[in-house]
Amino acid sequence: MGLAELTPSPAVYLGFLGYMQLVFFENLGRAVMAAPTPEAKSNLARATRELADAHEVVRAELRRLGLDPGEAMAPYRAALDDYQRRTQGADWDEILITCYLTHGFLADFFAGLAAGLPRALAERIAPVVEVQQGEEILVALLAREIDGNPRLASRLALWGRRLVGDTMLVARSVLAWPNGGTDEARIEPVFSELVGSHTRRMDALGLTA
Amino acid sequence: MGLAELTPSPAVYLGFLGYMQLVFFENLGRAVMAAPTPEAKSNLARATRELADAHEVVRAELRRLGLDPGEAMAPYRAALDDYQRRTQGADWDEILITCYLTHGFLADFFAGLAAGLPRALAERIAPVVEVQQGEEILVALLAREIDGNPRLASRLALWGRRLVGDTMLVARSVLAWPNGGTDEARIEPVFSELVGSHTRRMDALGLTA
Repeated sequence: MGLAELTPSPAVYLGFLGYMQLVFFENLGRAVMAAPTPEAKSNLARATRELADAHEVVRAELRRLGLDPGEAMAPYRAALDDYQRRTQGADWDEILITCYLTHGFLADFFAGLAAGLPRALAERIAPVVEVQQGEEILVALLAREIDGNPRLASRLALWGRRLVGDTMLVARSVLAWPNGGTDEARIEPVFSELVGSHTRRMDALGLTA
Repeated sequence: MGLAELTPSPAVYLGFLGYMQLVFFENLGRAVMAAPTPEAKSNLARATRELADAHEVVRAELRRLGLDPGEAMAPYRAALDDYQRRTQGADWDEILITCYLTHGFLADFFAGLAAGLPRALAERIAPVVEVQQGEEILVALLAREIDGNPRLASRLALWGRRLVGDTMLVARSVLAWPNGGTDEARIEPVFSELVGSHTRRMDALGLTA
């Protein structure tokens, strides 16, 4: 079973994704506030711009379905706000790696689900969701932080491991399981590719997943 | 004496403005985080997009002068971070009115100073600085909050009065006074037009300046 077989309705997909983008936006906003230099602030602000552009595309698709974007996002707010609180990180390094790892994981996840959307919608939305906005900026900032700092690397590796658990839980909550079931044995293969990409993201920074 | 006679060098003007835009960006980011509905979050996120675009224009002008944008902004960081702490507001309503009033005041201020920059630079930068990004969005959100809530209106009117004082102080700090003096008697007329616009901004929300 692949992700595309578990894609929810367009309204659920877009509403959930739309609010998730707002969570990402706030995460990047926290990273701007915590950034130690004007240059880092500017770079992170640039990443939010790309994300805000992508958010407008999702809002436009919700309106195209005849929905009010704010109302369509509202049902996912409580769960995603809670996810945000659990994953936001305590300092700049943790905030940065949260942005890098969770936004990356969920970009892959929503891109995989997009294949199960009606064709025309999938073609319009896929180019937006499969891009992780600001990924290069985040990797460059994190690499500089981690370089020559094994204690930080080990702390961030632990934090990354915790993040993937919380992120998989929130991702699972949007899947449309056949017959309403959530067969645990069938979840592993669905997520194995996503976890593989997560591991590669950790490796890229020299962190042990 | 008009503002254009007190314009600092291009490097100071752009460095100060660039970091001020980062402060505005963080203010709007706080407004997104504190917003009570997904719709308000989306609208405020859209306002940050315009601001981030304007910030890129300022960074490009700094590079055109042969300067590193991050280094050019750094000297203004301590004073502007302090300004931000003093003006950030305690809740969503105060954050919103801080964005509306201080960003508006300083947009007018930097547009006035732009007339004293070298002509070509002034022509490129003026269209960016004289716009208050997201003003319509902020006014719409604030009007809805204040409507039928006289206690809030009175609290925000007080807060607005305090904001203008702090904002004038930070604006003064960037002016290039002849002979290094800061003749108090000559400051009033320079700021009177800006204060007039501030009062009109308060009036637009039914607040007494």
